[in-house]
Amino acid sequence: MRAVDLIAKKRDGLALTKDEIAWFVESYTRGDLPDYQASAMLMAIFLKGMSREETVNLTLSMAYSGDVLDLSDLIPYAVDKHSSGGIGDKTTLVVLPLVASCGVPVAKMSGRGLGYSGGTIDKLEAISGYQVNLSNEEFRRLVRENAIVLTGQSKDLAPADGKIYALRDVTATVPCLPLIASSIMSKKIAAGANGIVLDVKVGRGAFMTNLDDARELAQIMVDIGVDAGRDMIAVLSDMNQPLGAAVGNALEVVEAIDCLQGNGPADFREHCLDLAAYMLRLAGQGKKWNDDAEIRGLLTEQLSNGQAFARFRSLVQGQGGDVGMVDDPSRLPKAPIIETFTASQSGYVAQVAAELIGMAAFGLGAGREKKGDPIDLAVGLEVHAKVGDKVESGAPLVTIHARKPEQLATCRSTLQQAITFSDSPVEPLPLFYGTIFGR
Amino acid sequence: MRAVDLIAKKRDGLALTKDEIAWFVESYTRGDLPDYQASAMLMAIFLKGMSREETVNLTLSMAYSGDVLDLSDLIPYAVDKHSSGGIGDKTTLVVLPLVASCGVPVAKMSGRGLGYSGGTIDKLEAISGYQVNLSNEEFRRLVRENAIVLTGQSKDLAPADGKIYALRDVTATVPCLPLIASSIMSKKIAAGANGIVLDVKVGRGAFMTNLDDARELAQIMVDIGVDAGRDMIAVLSDMNQPLGAAVGNALEVVEAIDCLQGNGPADFREHCLDLAAYMLRLAGQGKKWNDDAEIRGLLTEQLSNGQAFARFRSLVQGQGGDVGMVDDPSRLPKAPIIETFTASQSGYVAQVAAELIGMAAFGLGAGREKKGDPIDLAVGLEVHAKVGDKVESGAPLVTIHARKPEQLATCRSTLQQAITFSDSPVEPLPLFYGTIFGR
Repeated sequence: MRAVDLIAKKRDGLALTKDEIAWFVESYTRGDLPDYQASAMLMAIFLKGMSREETVNLTLSMAYSGDVLDLSDLIPYAVDKHSSGGIGDKTTLVVLPLVASCGVPVAKMSGRGLGYSGGTIDKLEAISGYQVNLSNEEFRRLVRENAIVLTGQSKDLAPADGKIYALRDVTATVPCLPLIASSIMSKKIAAGANGIVLDVKVGRGAFMTNLDDARELAQIMVDIGVDAGRDMIAVLSDMNQPLGAAVGNALEVVEAIDCLQGNGPADFREHCLDLAAYMLRLAGQGKKWNDDAEIRGLLTEQLSNGQAFARFRSLVQGQGGDVGMVDDPSRLPKAPIIETFTASQSGYVAQVAAELIGMAAFGLGAGREKKGDPIDLAVGLEVHAKVGDKVESGAPLVTIHARKPEQLATCRSTLQQAITFSDSPVEPLPLFYGTIFGR
Repeated sequence: MRAVDLIAKKRDGLALTKDEIAWFVESYTRGDLPDYQASAMLMAIFLKGMSREETVNLTLSMAYSGDVLDLSDLIPYAVDKHSSGGIGDKTTLVVLPLVASCGVPVAKMSGRGLGYSGGTIDKLEAISGYQVNLSNEEFRRLVRENAIVLTGQSKDLAPADGKIYALRDVTATVPCLPLIASSIMSKKIAAGANGIVLDVKVGRGAFMTNLDDARELAQIMVDIGVDAGRDMIAVLSDMNQPLGAAVGNALEVVEAIDCLQGNGPADFREHCLDLAAYMLRLAGQGKKWNDDAEIRGLLTEQLSNGQAFARFRSLVQGQGGDVGMVDDPSRLPKAPIIETFTASQSGYVAQVAAELIGMAAFGLGAGREKKGDPIDLAVGLEVHAKVGDKVESGAPLVTIHARKPEQLATCRSTLQQAITFSDSPVEPLPLFYGTIFGR
């Protein structure tokens, strides 16, 4: 096979065979195929698309480009979740211990964040000592002994994805559905998941800003999973306003702990309950947990009886984190400046623009622009306003946690833009726009 | 400027500005912009196209990426020609001395060949001692003293083109009109041409196999030249059958010498007279040589009175070649095996498939697959049949000049496929399909 012939084939809009895709991915991962041929192929894929079959084959080639985790001796049915990312999305921190507390072992790899704020792994680093790089042996030992693990992405899993993603980033080939879908799904498949719950965010603060695109992406990923023999559920969830209140790394850990103890913002709690319910439903494989009301009852109970929180403690302990910080969240990293942003007028909250809230948090230092940049774990925002809320002029809308006084002016002006009001009542935003079941 | 933003712009089908194109070309030529970003851009250009303005800007950026030849102190008006390449196209070897013999100084850079047979520079190397790599000083001295130079492409001219072409070759972005046009025209502009005659071949042995594509390419190049202030003439010429009889390097030199002495195949002679006439017309700049009949008379005269041949001798002498070989072409490289391929039936010649003739010559060793491969200068074919000819069974159609006996069987079988017959009369192929005048 010659790379140039395969590029020409895709360039002309023809479908690549399974063998051709496998050859391309393997050659590129090995380093036999140069970046410049891979990038020409990526641009051809971007502009000419890929069929469902091609996308599945690409995903599987990437998934099997390195080690594929097999935990079947430890976990009879591995259930995983993935979020496409949004402002204030700390869901994993809650649903993983919550699901584990129901007797379903969970072993998840998460990523660091790029953009507005950190990823799950960055957030966990707010807890002193928490180890995000585990060896294979430690990982397996924790699954066996603790039945819950939450660690960074192993470089040995789906190395093709890492290499291809880095190239897409610098060749304007990121926003392409088959490439996005195969990138996400290859990692999940390589991580050994039997069932996957996808949380596809849609709205101004999400990668997908309109519902049709988000639904298409969700459907492609569900299709890939189904064709690869996985059980799939995808939810389309709102990201026009932040999820919960906390935006920023340590602040989000605090809110997650709150939620695990039965408290926290209603929307975030509801979101976590829904995702956890879908994970239980998959893990039950149609034999256990079929009744929605029963599942919901169990999960609510685990939040109120301390079991979910206990699993979070044991997660932190297992990975070497300071449990004292979990028991007393006031010991987590704290910003020196805490200020309140208040409503400039009375009225109904018309918008809490997620991307502007994210930008404000980023301005405080909560996120990173490029890989390896440091993150300020302490800073961020607590956004108390939700679309539809009735507020009085002067009411506190946002608590700003900042490092430097000179950051405040820009932050306030961004928040001013982000939160707008209406004189007449405004409908609250829905949490979800739909669910896609695969298989 | 960020490369990724410019790639995204072209990917989305938007036009790049003059500054953006210049930045991209300059950064790439300097080595600041990596191959993988350039190849993503090339694929985006391939699939989204370029406007006339963009193509002109790309051409000029490439033309000015290195030295731009200025011979204005030596040649008041520099006229150049370019052929898009075909089987048996040894036109430059004739028209350059022919035009020079009319008192128009000519200084041309030509390329080596890839594919079926060698380029002009390869052919000239059949003459012992002929120097194709001249320093700037030698080049200028020959223009001044000899008024005719024919040398290899200087690496200092349009270096961006060399770099971009090499990348296109391995990323399936060669057959793209704006990229082809800008590649050709950037070299001509960098070589300091005031007027350019383009010979765009069309047919089964040409890069452009259909007339519409060829006309579009010719029009784009004429447009670029006009926008860049050059005088342009493009002819669309037939490449369904070989031009003239000789295909192969030394064989083509022999045929060119024949033609320069007033003999040679009629189609080739006619083709050369037409191209030379257009070059004179440009060089005359509307003041001299306006009358077609007068020009044709002059050119025919220069072939028959020995003046054109004398200029060829002086070209070879000036560049250190063995003039004895020109005076006695039997001294040029000769293949050890000379065989005749005869007509298997009587009838009218229906096709002499140029690409198959090329393939047969390539099989004998007359061409190269990749840069740097050696070429056998002696081998090749003399194709005596033209479409429309009436032949008797057993009549000689092709003289095969081969190195190794084991090459003959394949060669014969390819020729068998290439030359077909009809029982009823067949129209001869035209030499030209049209002319486009620019300015």
